Amino acid sequence: MRIAVLGTGVVGQAIAGRLDELGHDVVVGTRDVATTLARTEPDGMGNPPFPDWTRAHPRVRVVSLADAGAHGEVVVNATAGGGAVDALRGAGAENLAGKVVVDVSNPLDFSRGFPPTLFVKDDDSLGEQIQRALPDARVVKTLNTMTAGLMVHPEQLADGDHSVFVSGDDAAAKATVAELLRSMGHTDVIDLGDLSSARGTEMMLPVWLRLFGALGTPMFNVKVVR
Amino acid sequence: MRIAVLGTGVVGQAIAGRLDELGHDVVVGTRDVATTLARTEPDGMGNPPFPDWTRAHPRVRVVSLADAGAHGEVVVNATAGGGAVDALRGAGAENLAGKVVVDVSNPLDFSRGFPPTLFVKDDDSLGEQIQRALPDARVVKTLNTMTAGLMVHPEQLADGDHSVFVSGDDAAAKATVAELLRSMGHTDVIDLGDLSSARGTEMMLPVWLRLFGALGTPMFNVKVVR
Repeated sequence: MRIAVLGTGVVGQAIAGRLDELGHDVVVGTRDVATTLARTEPDGMGNPPFPDWTRAHPRVRVVSLADAGAHGEVVVNATAGGGAVDALRGAGAENLAGKVVVDVSNPLDFSRGFPPTLFVKDDDSLGEQIQRALPDARVVKTLNTMTAGLMVHPEQLADGDHSVFVSGDDAAAKATVAELLRSMGHTDVIDLGDLSSARGTEMMLPVWLRLFGALGTPMFNVKVVR
Repeated sequence: MRIAVLGTGVVGQAIAGRLDELGHDVVVGTRDVATTLARTEPDGMGNPPFPDWTRAHPRVRVVSLADAGAHGEVVVNATAGGGAVDALRGAGAENLAGKVVVDVSNPLDFSRGFPPTLFVKDDDSLGEQIQRALPDARVVKTLNTMTAGLMVHPEQLADGDHSVFVSGDDAAAKATVAELLRSMGHTDVIDLGDLSSARGTEMMLPVWLRLFGALGTPMFNVKVVR
C-alpha cells in the first residue's frame, strides 16, 4: 500500500520504519525537506538527527507535505498535535479527499510547563478538528494512547496482550486501519465508535503521563479487561 | 474501623454494604434522613428505593451528613460529583479535619445531555476542589474509574486481574485507602502521585463511557500492563 507519514519525530520514524519493514511503499512528509535532511544535531529529547534514520531506511523517501499527500492512499499524521492541522493542510485537502487519514497525535499544550494540558478536550477533539479541516478525508484516530515503540511493536510488552482504540465516522476506513494495526502486531483493536469518541482517548493522555511518572518507564499500556 | 459513606445511590450502597460485610462499623450519611427512608419508588435508573437496601443491611445506620462526618474515621464521598463539595461541607469541615476522605465521584455534567462533559478538568479536578473545601482533611481519590459492582467485588472480572488508582497528597492516607482496597479484593493498586493526578483519572470517564457503549456492559476495567 502507498502510505505517507507526516512528521519526522520519534513517532513518525517508528511508524514509517515499521510500515516500510512490512513491505509498504512509504514516504515521509516534512515541511522543509532540505532543512530536515541537513540536520546534524540531536533533537531536544536527545534523539539522533533525522538523517541518521533516513540512512538506515533507504527505501523511504523524504518528500514535501504536498508530495506526501499526493503519494499516500493512507496518510498518517505523526506531527505534534499543535502543528497537525497545518501539516495536513500542507498535504492538501484536495490530495486527501476520499483517503484514510490516520491521526495518532495528541493535543498537548506545553505552554504552561509540565505536565502539559490539552488545547482541545471534552466537547471537541483534535481528531474532529482535523476532520473539519479535511471534510472529504476519512479520519481515523488511533495509537495516541501509547508510546511510539509499542505502537509499532506491541509484542514487546506482555506478548501484545493489551488494547488499542480506533475512532472514526467511516466504517471502511476504520477497517483499513484495524488491518494495519493487526499487521503491526496489535491483537485487541477496540472500535469506540464515531470520531467524537476520540475525545475519550485524547483525554487519556493526562493519566498516561502520570503513569509514566509513577512507573518510571513509557513501556506500559492499558488492556481493557472484559 | 468506623466508616461513613455519604450518598445513598448505587455507589454508596455498594461501598457501604461491602464495608459492612467486611466487619467495619458503617453509617450512611444523607442530607434528609426522613425523606430518604420514606422513599417507596425506584430511582430514575430503575433501582429499588433505598429503604429496601437498609432492610437488607440492618447493621448500617442511616444518619445526617453531620452525624456521618462525626462518626467516620474514614469518610467516603459517594455522592454525585455535582453535589460532592456541598455534601462534604454538610458533613462538617471540622468533623473531617485530620480524617481520610475518600472521593470516588466524578465531575459529570449532564446539562447538555449524553454523553456528559466534565465540569472541572485538565488544570484542576474535583478531588482538588474537595481538598480545597476541606483543607484539614486528607483527601484520596480512587475507584472512580470503574462501575460500582467492580469497585467492591473486583474478583467478579478476570479474578480481579485489573487496576485501581489512588491519588493524594498524604502518604499515610493513601496507605490506609490502599489497604481498604486490597481488603475488598483489589490486587493492583497504583499510586499515581499527589492529588493533582486525580485530573488524569477523572479524565478517563469519557473513554469509560465510550467503552460502556462499545462493549454493551459496564463490567469492564483497565489493567495497566507493564
